Amino acid sequence: MAEKKQLRLGAFMRPVSLHTGAWRYPGAYPDANFNFAHLKRFAQTLEAAKFDAFFMADHLAVLNMPIEALRRSHTVTSFEPFTLLSALAAVTDHIGLVATASTTFDAPYHIARRFASLDHISGGRAGWNIVTTSNPDAALNFGLDEHVEHDERYHRAREFYDVVTGLWDSFADDAFLRDAESGLYFDPAKLHVLDHKGEHLSVRGPLNIARPVQGWPVIVQAGASEAGRQLAAETAEVIFAAHGDLASGQRFFADVKARAQKLGRSRDDIKILPGAFVIVGDSVEEARARRAKLDSLVYYESGIASLSIALGHDASAFDPDAALPEIPETNASKSSRERAIELARDENLTVRQLAQRLGGYSGLAFVGTPKTIADEMEEWLVAEGSDGFNIMFPYLPAGLDDFVEKVVPELQRRGIFRLKYEGSTLRENLGLKRPPNRFFEDTEASIRKAG
Amino acid sequence: MAEKKQLRLGAFMRPVSLHTGAWRYPGAYPDANFNFAHLKRFAQTLEAAKFDAFFMADHLAVLNMPIEALRRSHTVTSFEPFTLLSALAAVTDHIGLVATASTTFDAPYHIARRFASLDHISGGRAGWNIVTTSNPDAALNFGLDEHVEHDERYHRAREFYDVVTGLWDSFADDAFLRDAESGLYFDPAKLHVLDHKGEHLSVRGPLNIARPVQGWPVIVQAGASEAGRQLAAETAEVIFAAHGDLASGQRFFADVKARAQKLGRSRDDIKILPGAFVIVGDSVEEARARRAKLDSLVYYESGIASLSIALGHDASAFDPDAALPEIPETNASKSSRERAIELARDENLTVRQLAQRLGGYSGLAFVGTPKTIADEMEEWLVAEGSDGFNIMFPYLPAGLDDFVEKVVPELQRRGIFRLKYEGSTLRENLGLKRPPNRFFEDTEASIRKAG
Repeated sequence: MAEKKQLRLGAFMRPVSLHTGAWRYPGAYPDANFNFAHLKRFAQTLEAAKFDAFFMADHLAVLNMPIEALRRSHTVTSFEPFTLLSALAAVTDHIGLVATASTTFDAPYHIARRFASLDHISGGRAGWNIVTTSNPDAALNFGLDEHVEHDERYHRAREFYDVVTGLWDSFADDAFLRDAESGLYFDPAKLHVLDHKGEHLSVRGPLNIARPVQGWPVIVQAGASEAGRQLAAETAEVIFAAHGDLASGQRFFADVKARAQKLGRSRDDIKILPGAFVIVGDSVEEARARRAKLDSLVYYESGIASLSIALGHDASAFDPDAALPEIPETNASKSSRERAIELARDENLTVRQLAQRLGGYSGLAFVGTPKTIADEMEEWLVAEGSDGFNIMFPYLPAGLDDFVEKVVPELQRRGIFRLKYEGSTLRENLGLKRPPNRFFEDTEASIRKAG
Repeated sequence: MAEKKQLRLGAFMRPVSLHTGAWRYPGAYPDANFNFAHLKRFAQTLEAAKFDAFFMADHLAVLNMPIEALRRSHTVTSFEPFTLLSALAAVTDHIGLVATASTTFDAPYHIARRFASLDHISGGRAGWNIVTTSNPDAALNFGLDEHVEHDERYHRAREFYDVVTGLWDSFADDAFLRDAESGLYFDPAKLHVLDHKGEHLSVRGPLNIARPVQGWPVIVQAGASEAGRQLAAETAEVIFAAHGDLASGQRFFADVKARAQKLGRSRDDIKILPGAFVIVGDSVEEARARRAKLDSLVYYESGIASLSIALGHDASAFDPDAALPEIPETNASKSSRERAIELARDENLTVRQLAQRLGGYSGLAFVGTPKTIADEMEEWLVAEGSDGFNIMFPYLPAGLDDFVEKVVPELQRRGIFRLKYEGSTLRENLGLKRPPNRFFEDTEASIRKAG
């Protein structure tokens, strides 16, 4: 029997959950933003369940939302990714550690060093989620008066990637002799000085750290725009995508894999993992009731603001406890308007429930029993909608525990998710190649390391 | 009986040791630059011995030494401090974690976030060693053609410190309500937007992380220049000093404490810890033999280069195995010349031995038995030469183990070093006050937190 295609699972983490109502959910850890013990527990639980990676989102400013909404949201603060993931590296052994780092507001020498250091500390489990930072408030925290324009950010990102990967290649894999007898510590013929001078960046090098265990930490991206897709096709090994349904997932999957092939890469060199919000129940009704409970904890005014934007119509005068009234045609994006109306009709939601859904989370979600959730995941996998998922837990710790205890065994029973880790590095577990050093020939030692 | 003045002990760490011959010393871990397991062992051993802090030095470039010397030195690479110390935070409970971070080549928003995050992860054990980065090669790795001039660096450092501490004060200690019932997560009246626009920096804020456990991580500095001393007197809580002998230590101690008092600070608000290289033996002769063995592992040509600079005279033609010949007067710094000549005479060193001493480490050193070392440390403490020491281990792990197993118990027996940690934070263990939030009145909650 041919082995079934394997699902890759990342955990898309914010300490309390990305849902703004989650900190109020029964049993939640509302202090997880400051309390490392909770994060350690989450990472160890995910590792026991054989997750590929713990994926830490990031923001370089307090989120730009109205203060009345902000004061009700735990998302106002979080741990910084490098410090958090490095600490988690010391208390885990297998799970990948993917840190978000911005190419717009940081220096490539720092980024190259930190990821190389995290990769050495973790024994080859680091991944870099390359972002260009879309929150305009971030610019104000980094000495700029206004945000860097979108295309400019992507041009810089591409050059930044070249510099960082070039710095990782500063030393050949076998540069270090450490021959105490002769006193030779490394071979200078195996040290490369990058001497990069480009449009946006000027960096001499070399990096003052040995080549990462994985050669390069795994490259992750999430851009969905034309520039983002192209950058991903050229450089990404994991893509964190966002799709509302299987059909759009399939279109994205086909598009990005074709772009990569055109660039001479293999389809398997890129793993596409859409974000999926998962709520587990012993029955579908129970799972839906949990979602309704969670949504009911969202600040109503925030929800109404989201609903008004989606409809292109002020929703604040609607009766919250009635069905959505007829909405006259407006200039709003037709698709967001139709989506909201459809959602209210399909799930029979009141204005309040619809508003709170939109104010909480309304993207791709699997809400049901372990069986229905596994069915949906398997369908995506088989139908080439994705290579797996970046799971978003609705509330913690219960939402995470439910997934690990109930959904993971069901996926394993079907033979589409690992029972044990395949290798010792994130790259090996994801089935990704170890990149050759662009400045040095592979040697026996590096080939052995690449396993 | 009045309690004796207590010694503070930091460990000034580079993974293999700061001595360039150390990686060749019998039993050394020459791969400690890449191997986290060794660093974990060191930190846990230092914690068991009740050290105040693990102090991680840093460089933002490969050290600028001739390639023939560099290829013989393990100092070519190291872990990056934030990733390393965060990982150590997860496997230790009491020891302070002091990271070096540059005000010249980083952004205050990043620095404020990382230290705040490390402080939360470690439960209040972070310290910031503020450096302005003197290695000119660093500039070339950060987009500059030449190094930033000394005074300019210090002006920026002062402003940088104001911004970082201001960002740490973004939230009042009691800003977070986390009232699930009402849905209020924090009180916006207790959030301060910094809105800094200064000569070198423009940073809006607020920080997207709660106030650090310690209020502010402990501020550490090492500047010895006029500008460095003044910055330290204004801002530092720990000073990592460098002195050759007790008399110069006393002058520095008196000068900096007087400067601080003049600025309205208490003498106890600053702890002065000179770096001290310690080699332990069961006899003085054994300790000296260990030092001679270690020095003999230094690359001779590097040593000769250092000796030539010290003498202001080319030493390469001297007979390596003879005593230092008479040196004609030159333009070299008289003190470095005299110091080298005195050293050769006092310890009866050959040219080779003298050269290797200067090429390895030739600053303040305590070389002897646990008793003689404790005598010297106690003398410094009583004579107001220092508040303690930043210990530099000559080789690892043996040099560290010797200190911990033999010197620490002797210091404890004399009642000048703790038997157990006094508090739970680095600040509490060092006897430093928790800084008030500059934007918010102390509340009962913050006073309680301050212990």
